[in-house]
Amino acid sequence: MQSLSFQLKHTCGQARAGTVTTRHGTIHTPIFMPVGTQATVKALSPRELDEAQAQIILGNTYHLYLRPGHELVKRFGGLHGFMNWPKPILTDSGGYQVFSLGSLRKITEEGVEFRSHIDGSRHFISPEKSLEIQQALGSDIMMVFDECPPSTADRGYIEKSLAMTLRWASRSRTAWTNRQQQALFGIIQGGLYPDLRLQSLSALVEMDFPGYAIGGLSVGEPPEKMYEVVEHIAPAMPADRPRYLMGVGTPVDLIQCIDRGVDMFDCVMPTRNARNGTLFTSTGKVNIKNARYAEDHEPLDSQCSCYTCRNFSRGYLRHLYQCGEILGLRLNTLHNIHYYLQLMAGARAAIADGTWNRWKNQQLDIYK
Amino acid sequence: MQSLSFQLKHTCGQARAGTVTTRHGTIHTPIFMPVGTQATVKALSPRELDEAQAQIILGNTYHLYLRPGHELVKRFGGLHGFMNWPKPILTDSGGYQVFSLGSLRKITEEGVEFRSHIDGSRHFISPEKSLEIQQALGSDIMMVFDECPPSTADRGYIEKSLAMTLRWASRSRTAWTNRQQQALFGIIQGGLYPDLRLQSLSALVEMDFPGYAIGGLSVGEPPEKMYEVVEHIAPAMPADRPRYLMGVGTPVDLIQCIDRGVDMFDCVMPTRNARNGTLFTSTGKVNIKNARYAEDHEPLDSQCSCYTCRNFSRGYLRHLYQCGEILGLRLNTLHNIHYYLQLMAGARAAIADGTWNRWKNQQLDIYK
Ligand SMILES: [Zn+2]
Ligand SMILES: [Zn+2]
Repeated sequence: MQSLSFQLKHTCGQARAGTVTTRHGTIHTPIFMPVGTQATVKALSPRELDEAQAQIILGNTYHLYLRPGHELVKRFGGLHGFMNWPKPILTDSGGYQVFSLGSLRKITEEGVEFRSHIDGSRHFISPEKSLEIQQALGSDIMMVFDECPPSTADRGYIEKSLAMTLRWASRSRTAWTNRQQQALFGIIQGGLYPDLRLQSLSALVEMDFPGYAIGGLSVGEPPEKMYEVVEHIAPAMPADRPRYLMGVGTPVDLIQCIDRGVDMFDCVMPTRNARNGTLFTSTGKVNIKNARYAEDHEPLDSQCSCYTCRNFSRGYLRHLYQCGEILGLRLNTLHNIHYYLQLMAGARAAIADGTWNRWKNQQLDIYK
Repeated sequence: MQSLSFQLKHTCGQARAGTVTTRHGTIHTPIFMPVGTQATVKALSPRELDEAQAQIILGNTYHLYLRPGHELVKRFGGLHGFMNWPKPILTDSGGYQVFSLGSLRKITEEGVEFRSHIDGSRHFISPEKSLEIQQALGSDIMMVFDECPPSTADRGYIEKSLAMTLRWASRSRTAWTNRQQQALFGIIQGGLYPDLRLQSLSALVEMDFPGYAIGGLSVGEPPEKMYEVVEHIAPAMPADRPRYLMGVGTPVDLIQCIDRGVDMFDCVMPTRNARNGTLFTSTGKVNIKNARYAEDHEPLDSQCSCYTCRNFSRGYLRHLYQCGEILGLRLNTLHNIHYYLQLMAGARAAIADGTWNRWKNQQLDIYK
């Protein structure tokens, strides 16, 4: 048996609904993956994630490598055993964090030398090392190690970077030694250049990965620019493999990119915004710290069935926020994750029903 | 119907087991009350408190008066409605916090003027004002407003303070206008002076309160000194009313004071210590930040049935602590509260069975 299989079930234009089956269970796409950077989705327990119907979560290789260390996690039964999450897990390659968090980076053909953002200690990650770490973590889906050039980089730099990233993808694939247990996705780079993106895609498809991701977007460019790249590249991606857009995004981004053929998403937005008091609801954004909510007896979102909305008022949530209480961070996060996952459930149902366009426009109207 | 009734069910020496019935339900004593300072027991949800079998929680009048304000809480259906906790609540009088947190205090016969620790705003709390606040909060048990003299105060100061505190208790009792809805407890003061303590008690009993508390202990004196005062005063308290020892304490303190006739306790220790990584277990204290736990695959307490102990290893808890993750604060708090409440359940069972002395000695041995 392969470590991963994809079944396309329904399409509506470019929008797709399908299933991704892994050793830890089946994921229904389109899907949003809550981010569990340090072996925990911030503020939530595994039980709450399960109740919110999370199907798959993401772990960050860079963070887990530095603390508590991948070898230690392996001795605890991998990330599944360590954090007690029995469903699928995807790990990133660490590339993005090396470039955004590590300091004094030195990039060579071999890999990247950098200093830890925690204690300044010196480390080296190569494609092979990233795969070694991810295999120790035991995720269901691993990602190839790639360079993430700054969004301001010029075409010349992006071309060079892309060429090396493709050589790294090939090395990652060679280092992928347990193909029955863990899947490996290739990552399409190429900045905002359509021709480089297609070139990256076709080189990766040549290598034959169980799934493909679009990387290097949502790094500061306007959303329309991102949609344009996705619109260009997603339909060209193999129809029989899952398509994952990395690090995206707002509810509108998710809908726009599902509409362009994407199946999988991850983003810190729902969890991070929740901790800052920005909440997504069926009637739009709510900034819970606003004084207007102090006397508001209504639930955060009367359409939502999460624990927060079933039990507490906006006034109470605002009070918790004002006091910096941990329960406020929890209840806000719970709701935002629930909202994102319900949004994906709505998208799947609409694609299956053939009502995708109507549903999409209704949702987009909320955020107009 | 009275707002509160007490039934003494079993005794073993001075140790007592009974029930306290309030409008929001019946509490089985001896009982520990988790502290919910700002309308939340820090890091826990009401559902988790319920699952830990919390029977009654405490709210802090001083904090809730300053933020979000008692009038606002009242409009949300009181503290029960505001924080969605349907079981009994006890509120303190605010006295202790005025003296420990407020700045620039000016104490007069009328009451206390002070500045808020949050924004420096000026406030005045009198016995009448404290009762007004507590009635707005709608707690099941209110406390009289008292002065809390510093533990270093001399006998002369304590005598003067006690006399005023008794006049304040009388004024509190007069301001208690809803005797069918909320109960009011008197507070015995008198420092470490046995004669002053008895004098305080008899003056309060003269006024006839539904329950009596011992205040002004656990403020820096050695535990033996505290046990001595409790041993002296508790057996002299009315046998047909609940006896509440305020702000106490460690598991050993609870056992020693149940043994001397106390029924009710509150303390920030289990919640605060949890957030600092100090955990109470059936085999003694565990400091989870200790490096020795990094590779420990065992649950925190193999005798404990809480969510934390059923699902996670010491190694994982240490990792969460090291990373400062919110889930670590949650899981630690959940366990400590569960431990305290199970300890009280054990005490009740032992008193009912007539095995109190054996059980007590077993428990005390753990902390030797
Ligand atoms: Zn909700
Ligand atoms: Zn436990």
